Amino acid sequence: MSITEDEITEWFARRSSLHAAEFPIGIGDDMAQIRLADDVSVLITTDMLLEGVHFDLQKCTVKQAGYKAMAASLSDCAAMATVPIAAVVSVALPKNFGEKELKQLHSGITRAGDKFDCPLVGGDITCWQASQALVISVAMLSRTAGSKPVGRHGANVGDVICVTGALGGAMYGKHLEFEPRVREAIKITAMVNVNAMIDISDGLSSDLNRICRASRVGAIINAAQIPVSDDATRGDNPLSSALNHGEDFELLFVLSPAECHKLLSEWSGPVPITQIGTITDATKMQIMQIKMPDGQLRDLQPQGYDHLRD
Amino acid sequence: MSITEDEITEWFARRSSLHAAEFPIGIGDDMAQIRLADDVSVLITTDMLLEGVHFDLQKCTVKQAGYKAMAASLSDCAAMATVPIAAVVSVALPKNFGEKELKQLHSGITRAGDKFDCPLVGGDITCWQASQALVISVAMLSRTAGSKPVGRHGANVGDVICVTGALGGAMYGKHLEFEPRVREAIKITAMVNVNAMIDISDGLSSDLNRICRASRVGAIINAAQIPVSDDATRGDNPLSSALNHGEDFELLFVLSPAECHKLLSEWSGPVPITQIGTITDATKMQIMQIKMPDGQLRDLQPQGYDHLRD
Repeated sequence: MSITEDEITEWFARRSSLHAAEFPIGIGDDMAQIRLADDVSVLITTDMLLEGVHFDLQKCTVKQAGYKAMAASLSDCAAMATVPIAAVVSVALPKNFGEKELKQLHSGITRAGDKFDCPLVGGDITCWQASQALVISVAMLSRTAGSKPVGRHGANVGDVICVTGALGGAMYGKHLEFEPRVREAIKITAMVNVNAMIDISDGLSSDLNRICRASRVGAIINAAQIPVSDDATRGDNPLSSALNHGEDFELLFVLSPAECHKLLSEWSGPVPITQIGTITDATKMQIMQIKMPDGQLRDLQPQGYDHLRD
Repeated sequence: MSITEDEITEWFARRSSLHAAEFPIGIGDDMAQIRLADDVSVLITTDMLLEGVHFDLQKCTVKQAGYKAMAASLSDCAAMATVPIAAVVSVALPKNFGEKELKQLHSGITRAGDKFDCPLVGGDITCWQASQALVISVAMLSRTAGSKPVGRHGANVGDVICVTGALGGAMYGKHLEFEPRVREAIKITAMVNVNAMIDISDGLSSDLNRICRASRVGAIINAAQIPVSDDATRGDNPLSSALNHGEDFELLFVLSPAECHKLLSEWSGPVPITQIGTITDATKMQIMQIKMPDGQLRDLQPQGYDHLRD
């Protein structure tokens, strides 16, 4: 397709005319927010996972596919620092699927949901030819966790950029078994003011670019500070994997230097938080290759996964 | 598959242990209900539509497919007599889809949503091989319309069975262009007490069976009273089409004879309401073939569309 996923999302956002009172957060964040009463709102996200694109049933179980679908939406709840409430799941099953596979799928879905008291409350089951692929679509509701949901647009020049966990190499297994950072997001936002946050689904370079575009800022990443996972070192270019391969489902967030200092000095883990860069006014992303003798800055392109192009 | 859609739904429902205070309505109705505060709740439904199963892009436009997906969820809101609030849509696009098709899809989605002030507030766009099919999954939120949402389980012996509109032959066009009966459902439940309601998605015989199973009752339908659509008469067996072909997206509901009398005497249309039968204690469905000399009763099997078997 000649258009990127982010461009079409922005087109959709421009076409929507949501009343801010009723819809405080609309198209373009990890979740939309709907106000139901003066002091009551609910958030919603949806994710569709396709066999052959997001999982391969030659390399994973149906249960793992169900877990991943549910966990991806839980990760969206985490990205906004909200508390998951409930989910509905619609599936397209190849006709050769039996009752056994359907129950395995259910088991994977509930294994993820049970970790965060997020039950399956409904769904839709459809069937098609055995030559077709398994499709799993989750829609999940969440509620605010005391503070306001954290969007992508609040990054300020001078803010510090942080990530949880380690990045890269998710394709070796983590993409099926990751832990959505729901508790970490709620804990972080209870401790300090976070200005913008997203979960790393398509890759650090692409998801950081989303924060930069939404906040109309730039960023400098220090390559040497990126927490590269052990799995990323299994490939030829661990740094590129950490920047672009995605499906890490870690939190990427920005906050003021003072708040960052407070967070890092008080954070007790067990998931590590690492400072990896700074928000700038350059409205472009750059990466500092600190290992080079001159500490040169290079432009960083969003080279993560684009659902419309890759 | 050796199990029916309704059997697996019942298995899912038994496996869920939802707290009734937080989830007044769980798996097994057209929507689930989630309580967010003492006097605030939200309902949610999801529907997945598959190219080649629910629509055929040789015979319809991408815009029509988008309309149908959204309208099917609006019909679920109607089935519970609730007011649509907002929707999220996830799609799997074949790679040969361009920006043009995506915008047509968006246009169909918003055409349906705009009729009921139900905006698109978010979504997920994924892509796969051009040989794969278009998949559209909608999740929709609604709120109560004054009265309690109407479920499937409240039918009483002696109640009257009614339908809106005309049934059968939806495959000749109505399945792509139907009007979700949102306004009618809200109007009916504001006028009278409705004990059970469902929208006819899979066929009168199957959807009536769902009310009977949920309410542990039976039913007698009078064949001569079923409002058979003009389109149904284009096939060999108009009555069978009205009973079993589905995708009518009309309301099927039951209420006491007194309430039914009140409704039919005060109803001003324009969508007609027709009395077609009675709820019995036989815990089976029967059909009265009134044209036969003896007015004989025959057992009526749920022969509508089963997503796991057909």
